[in-house]
Amino acid sequence: MEYTPLNPQSVIDYLKSRPMLREILSDFDHLVAQEVGDGNLNQVFIIRHESDPKQAIIVKQALPYLRVAGDSWPLTRERVRFETQALRLYNEVTPGLAPQVYDYDEAMSMVAMEYLGQHEVMRKPLIARQRLPHFADHISTFMAATLFYTSDLYKTGLEKKLLQAQFINPHLNKIQEDFVYTNPYMQSPENRWNPELEAEVEAVRTNSRLKLAIAEMKDQYMTRGQALIHSDLHTGSIMVNADDTRVIDPEFAFFGPMGFDIGALFANLVLNALSHFAHTPDMQTRVEYQSYLVDLIHEIWTQFAQKFERLWVEHNRGELVPNDYWQYPGGDAAFSQFRQRYLHDMLQDAAGHGACEILRRMMGIVSVSDIQSIADLKQRAVVERSAVRVGLRWVMERSSINGIEDLIGIVTEEIKVT
Amino acid sequence: MEYTPLNPQSVIDYLKSRPMLREILSDFDHLVAQEVGDGNLNQVFIIRHESDPKQAIIVKQALPYLRVAGDSWPLTRERVRFETQALRLYNEVTPGLAPQVYDYDEAMSMVAMEYLGQHEVMRKPLIARQRLPHFADHISTFMAATLFYTSDLYKTGLEKKLLQAQFINPHLNKIQEDFVYTNPYMQSPENRWNPELEAEVEAVRTNSRLKLAIAEMKDQYMTRGQALIHSDLHTGSIMVNADDTRVIDPEFAFFGPMGFDIGALFANLVLNALSHFAHTPDMQTRVEYQSYLVDLIHEIWTQFAQKFERLWVEHNRGELVPNDYWQYPGGDAAFSQFRQRYLHDMLQDAAGHGACEILRRMMGIVSVSDIQSIADLKQRAVVERSAVRVGLRWVMERSSINGIEDLIGIVTEEIKVT
Repeated sequence: MEYTPLNPQSVIDYLKSRPMLREILSDFDHLVAQEVGDGNLNQVFIIRHESDPKQAIIVKQALPYLRVAGDSWPLTRERVRFETQALRLYNEVTPGLAPQVYDYDEAMSMVAMEYLGQHEVMRKPLIARQRLPHFADHISTFMAATLFYTSDLYKTGLEKKLLQAQFINPHLNKIQEDFVYTNPYMQSPENRWNPELEAEVEAVRTNSRLKLAIAEMKDQYMTRGQALIHSDLHTGSIMVNADDTRVIDPEFAFFGPMGFDIGALFANLVLNALSHFAHTPDMQTRVEYQSYLVDLIHEIWTQFAQKFERLWVEHNRGELVPNDYWQYPGGDAAFSQFRQRYLHDMLQDAAGHGACEILRRMMGIVSVSDIQSIADLKQRAVVERSAVRVGLRWVMERSSINGIEDLIGIVTEEIKVT
Repeated sequence: MEYTPLNPQSVIDYLKSRPMLREILSDFDHLVAQEVGDGNLNQVFIIRHESDPKQAIIVKQALPYLRVAGDSWPLTRERVRFETQALRLYNEVTPGLAPQVYDYDEAMSMVAMEYLGQHEVMRKPLIARQRLPHFADHISTFMAATLFYTSDLYKTGLEKKLLQAQFINPHLNKIQEDFVYTNPYMQSPENRWNPELEAEVEAVRTNSRLKLAIAEMKDQYMTRGQALIHSDLHTGSIMVNADDTRVIDPEFAFFGPMGFDIGALFANLVLNALSHFAHTPDMQTRVEYQSYLVDLIHEIWTQFAQKFERLWVEHNRGELVPNDYWQYPGGDAAFSQFRQRYLHDMLQDAAGHGACEILRRMMGIVSVSDIQSIADLKQRAVVERSAVRVGLRWVMERSSINGIEDLIGIVTEEIKVT
């Protein structure tokens, strides 16, 4: 079938032609399609049966262009392939932490996947100060598995490079290269910021030490093919409920630095924590929830590091350092030290990339709903100034971050003084 | 034409079928083919006319396997494609410093290129203590151009990643991963070393600090896609005469760390310098030539850094740091500092990768003729011990190498005490 954009009418007819979906959808006459995407990047349809809740799927179709900031970005429809490949890989290496993929149609740039009717995008419960008792466990498992199993620690050289070749994703890379590491820190027409933050934005854009540090992080993002990273792992790319966690939207996936995913997640938890300066006027309630989030970051990192290292010890079949390399008296200790260094470097990278994620949300093309939902610009500026300070310190002081305590210490200090 | 290994008889008939060669070869009845390859990796034929010196080419054909150390390495014939692509790129970005490519036949895994009858492999003149007055200029131009023009400093994100995709070269990567960064430092049946060096080899293989450092360099080699590197740029991959320099054999080319090429070249110049402890008994003659080589390294780096930086300033069209990023008061100085840091990091990388090249030549699958040609094993061991000490220091002290003086200082100290 030649590529045609689907609509709520045509999508049902189209789905009839897909044999892979017959196990889920059978009664096509009573299916209803609802378009729920933002219409800029992809079309997203919820397909539901009028009475049978089991007949429900999500259909995502790429449009040929991404329109942002009045500009038109050429964006190949190939991104649905990257998303599909990544989701399938997630389901293989860490089942139950991403939506299942039911069908993929390259010609139509269409992927059909599990409908997550019982989940919500994570930003919402965080803004509402909900606690997610299983989140640290789930997301640390997700990150440890997806990063480890796609890296040179687990894969042979050949396996890794052939997988990497399937994720050459330059168009979506370009979006992050521009909007995370470049444009927010210079004059660029699509940038938006709170007018109350004018002085801070100007200070960021003219801070040479900061700009050198950001350029170093960009260089790493562009050149360090360490593992298959999600590459957009903020709290808007995670769906949760009290029991369950699902990572969605991996269309930016490519082989990049592991610290990017960890940093993006931590950055967004920090932005939410700081947003409660406005959302949660009651000080005790606010401090408790902010502490909860800071502890959550601590817990995610601790569990992640443990799980990642256990995978490495138990499955060191990769190209990088075969077990035979450590076969000598003292070799066990050296291998252990190598793993610690690897994780130590990854945490410093996470601080650097996380900082860029924090800063770009303050002065780039798109903020986060946690902060955008603060109507009072002066109140919002309190949150944003605080975020800018954390971002500056994370990236400029990253070489002295020697453990998760150092990274969250910077956040805790900010929470105390604000 | 289906793939068939050529031989000195069949190659002439085969060449008749190639229209691209008609400009060079016309009188097929009087062409003579001579096989000059080592028969393990590739077949190399010199095709020459009996009386017309202008009718001469090199024909290189990949064999389906590389036999080494009694083992059989599967090696796709695709490596001729990488070599051809790289040679064409060299001729485009820095004409005259690599052989011209006349023809490429994917099905036959064949490349036809310029015959360099007036050149010799660089190891030979170095062993004979010849001076090459233009070499520093030529090779620094070659490295600056090939590294700069294929990097994110010159290419847009899209251009760079599409070029990178053409150089996914896992089979030849694996050879370097094994033989430069892994097997020499552990028990592996193909390793060979001078029995006089037993203690040093054992010390290297059980030195945890060293092995951590080497593993870090291997990690960088495997993950850092900075630019199209030659990836085997030793003095056996360079052909020279008094006036001319040509880089050959880029079949290992892929997107890797820039410091690798620089380090491989420096390492092999150091190995030659140290080899004169045996080749050149007369002390004054020896010291003079060793000083010449040390100065040559200094000169290559200095010219390389100048040329690389000039290219960057004049052609900063790449994705990494667009000029607009530095458009603020103080931005020029910051950009200058960024360039200096970039080159500074590259020199430290060169020290690390160069060290691995030095060490693996002492205890891995293959030494260098500069040293192998020393028949007396005790004399040879003097050279090799000295080389091991330089290698250890280059990689373990690389983070305190802050300029070319520091890097060559380690060599000079070794020359003085040996």
